[in-house]
Amino acid sequence: MDAKLIVDEVRLTPILISDPPLLNTQGVHQPHTPRLVVEVVTRGGVSGLGETYGDGVYLDIAQPLAEALSGRSVADVNGLFALTAETADTVGTEDSRVDASGLRGVRTADKLRLSVVSAFETACLDALGRTLGLPVHALLGGKVRDEVEYSAYLFYKWAGTDDWGAALDPAGIVAQARRFDREYGFRSFKLKGGVFEPEREIAAVRALADAFPGRPLRLDPNGAWSVETSLAVARELEDVLEYLEDPASGTAAMAEIAARTDVPLATNMCVTTFEEVPEAFAAGAVRIVLCDHHYWGGLHRTRELAALCRTYGVGLSMHSNTHLGISLAAMTQVAATLPGLHHACDTHYPWQTEDVVTPRPVFRAGRLTVSDAPGLGVDLDREALATLHERWLADEGTLRDRDDAAAMRRAHPNWAPTRW
Amino acid sequence: MDAKLIVDEVRLTPILISDPPLLNTQGVHQPHTPRLVVEVVTRGGVSGLGETYGDGVYLDIAQPLAEALSGRSVADVNGLFALTAETADTVGTEDSRVDASGLRGVRTADKLRLSVVSAFETACLDALGRTLGLPVHALLGGKVRDEVEYSAYLFYKWAGTDDWGAALDPAGIVAQARRFDREYGFRSFKLKGGVFEPEREIAAVRALADAFPGRPLRLDPNGAWSVETSLAVARELEDVLEYLEDPASGTAAMAEIAARTDVPLATNMCVTTFEEVPEAFAAGAVRIVLCDHHYWGGLHRTRELAALCRTYGVGLSMHSNTHLGISLAAMTQVAATLPGLHHACDTHYPWQTEDVVTPRPVFRAGRLTVSDAPGLGVDLDREALATLHERWLADEGTLRDRDDAAAMRRAHPNWAPTRW
Repeated sequence: MDAKLIVDEVRLTPILISDPPLLNTQGVHQPHTPRLVVEVVTRGGVSGLGETYGDGVYLDIAQPLAEALSGRSVADVNGLFALTAETADTVGTEDSRVDASGLRGVRTADKLRLSVVSAFETACLDALGRTLGLPVHALLGGKVRDEVEYSAYLFYKWAGTDDWGAALDPAGIVAQARRFDREYGFRSFKLKGGVFEPEREIAAVRALADAFPGRPLRLDPNGAWSVETSLAVARELEDVLEYLEDPASGTAAMAEIAARTDVPLATNMCVTTFEEVPEAFAAGAVRIVLCDHHYWGGLHRTRELAALCRTYGVGLSMHSNTHLGISLAAMTQVAATLPGLHHACDTHYPWQTEDVVTPRPVFRAGRLTVSDAPGLGVDLDREALATLHERWLADEGTLRDRDDAAAMRRAHPNWAPTRW
Repeated sequence: MDAKLIVDEVRLTPILISDPPLLNTQGVHQPHTPRLVVEVVTRGGVSGLGETYGDGVYLDIAQPLAEALSGRSVADVNGLFALTAETADTVGTEDSRVDASGLRGVRTADKLRLSVVSAFETACLDALGRTLGLPVHALLGGKVRDEVEYSAYLFYKWAGTDDWGAALDPAGIVAQARRFDREYGFRSFKLKGGVFEPEREIAAVRALADAFPGRPLRLDPNGAWSVETSLAVARELEDVLEYLEDPASGTAAMAEIAARTDVPLATNMCVTTFEEVPEAFAAGAVRIVLCDHHYWGGLHRTRELAALCRTYGVGLSMHSNTHLGISLAAMTQVAATLPGLHHACDTHYPWQTEDVVTPRPVFRAGRLTVSDAPGLGVDLDREALATLHERWLADEGTLRDRDDAAAMRRAHPNWAPTRW
């Protein structure tokens, strides 16, 4: 085993990053949200970076994995799954309630583990690529495109400390879209729905269609609607939607909707693990799956999901949760290698005013250029990392676990999620 | 782009290798069979090796691809598919008859191209690994086992110039198996059937079960049986078979058999491309798919097939056609990375008295140790390669395309395949 590829140390740095008050069906984004930065340092003195969810339950899995990784090769990423199963065999297993953020389906111990593995895999591949002088995409067989297209991620939001202001009606959403168009050049727009009654969200999408004729539009209420509501929305918007994302919860409901509308349905909720694929595909529940290397256990697994979708004639797009530049780089590297990626990828990144990488990536015409630099092509801003970690340390635990509903109830004590 | 990874030259060397008179439902192996050795040479002066079918139709695809590969990076293996589609867009498209060897289902232009791509991908990964100092398995995410188990491949055969003698009855098959057991330590035995009437083949498998109690046994008549015959054989052998491989031709027949027996069915005939997967899996036609990096377009695609099988709860084994040590090394490297590989892999290798690599791999207890040397871990024996290429050049074309039926008719002019 090549000594310079051996893991010498793994550094785990939980951080809290600023997040605007973006609304979704589960509540509102907290002012600070937790992320975990994973740094794998080799005996060759090279550091590799990964990023994932930072809630306590992820840290509990990451800690023993970090210890177990020492002495192993960064080239051995297939072995991470068995290693995590060993080191985290009981962590989180008692906890099968819906994720606090409520936006990725039922939370299982396996999903938690895969989300942690993803950051370790990314960090290992970054370190491997840096050591070898190869970009991560080359470690995945090579890029098939030089740029990756992203979509504007529109949110209903409150006014906050950010400079975007409030967006609570069609005019506000269109104004937000215009700024995304102007500053980032995004061609596609996705509206996070499930916040207001469907008529208001239909009106917002109609306003977008009027403001940006012919542009791909998406609406994602995170499963907040019934089958009948979903079908009514689909009828209203069938002439303008690229796809409707998770209108209702669960494969059965999605399949029923799919059977009764021509609007393509997409998901990052009813198909979030390989185990969920056969039933959903057999039922024709979705025409597009949103991959996410955090959910699926890393970049190699994302490529396997893409192969599954290709084989079954299911389209592929990419999901985003709140993330920083490390994950954005990983998303871009793997997206560059996926032949069947015919939809612009989601990203929350423009909403993040803070980052731990430098320089920050720049979107041009809604696209990121695929880096050919060694590894992920991003460098850690250690000062920024230290500052955000200080914030995590100073927090009294209230924000260390993301809880959009709790954040909402701090403003509206009697708030509860609505279903339409 | 790293200059030392750029392809400077691709050398294609068609060869004819000695092959014993092994019998199958399509006829008999020719005394010499064609293979193609692909050598990718980088500007860094490193050579990478690949091996595939050597018939003229493969050479026709390989030639323009070899020319187009110059100037590209050996790390860009994902790009080989598009490149091959461009360079070989018409080659073979008119030719959709069953493959001359008749043993891999319907021959399509796409399958031919993928078989050629596989050798180029293997050669690129070998060159990449050699340049970086990494084994090919590390370029696929790392091995999950240190040894790969292979199965003895038993054939009815005529006496030939080889030292195995004839094997035409149960005693002959058992004697063959004993030698495989003694010299190679194989635990599993696969009998190539479809040669004689089913009763004779049932008797051979029974004799194997008596001689080697408890060992995994397989029978593969290459689709030569009807549904009823397949079911009758399954009933006779259900207590001893690990699996029954391609008893009948086509997904519909396989599905009907599968529905009426508990004996697991395996295939390398009705599922040979990604396009064939959904129907076969939905129909429950097979419980085990035999992967083959030649068929499926290389080592990355083999991993994708494995992910598909894992997702759908379908078992995985590995197919073999006549091959040399380059392919054996590639099979071993990719097999080492597949978590769901719970069946011993097939290999014809012990039947080959000639090879182009040195030293020849050695089976111990039916297993090969996974090489951690850079690349595939095998070196080209240029003298042997030149000799076998001379044989190809000297041939008047009669053996340059494998045709087991023609070989059979040279001995029995009125021979035709039998179906039971």
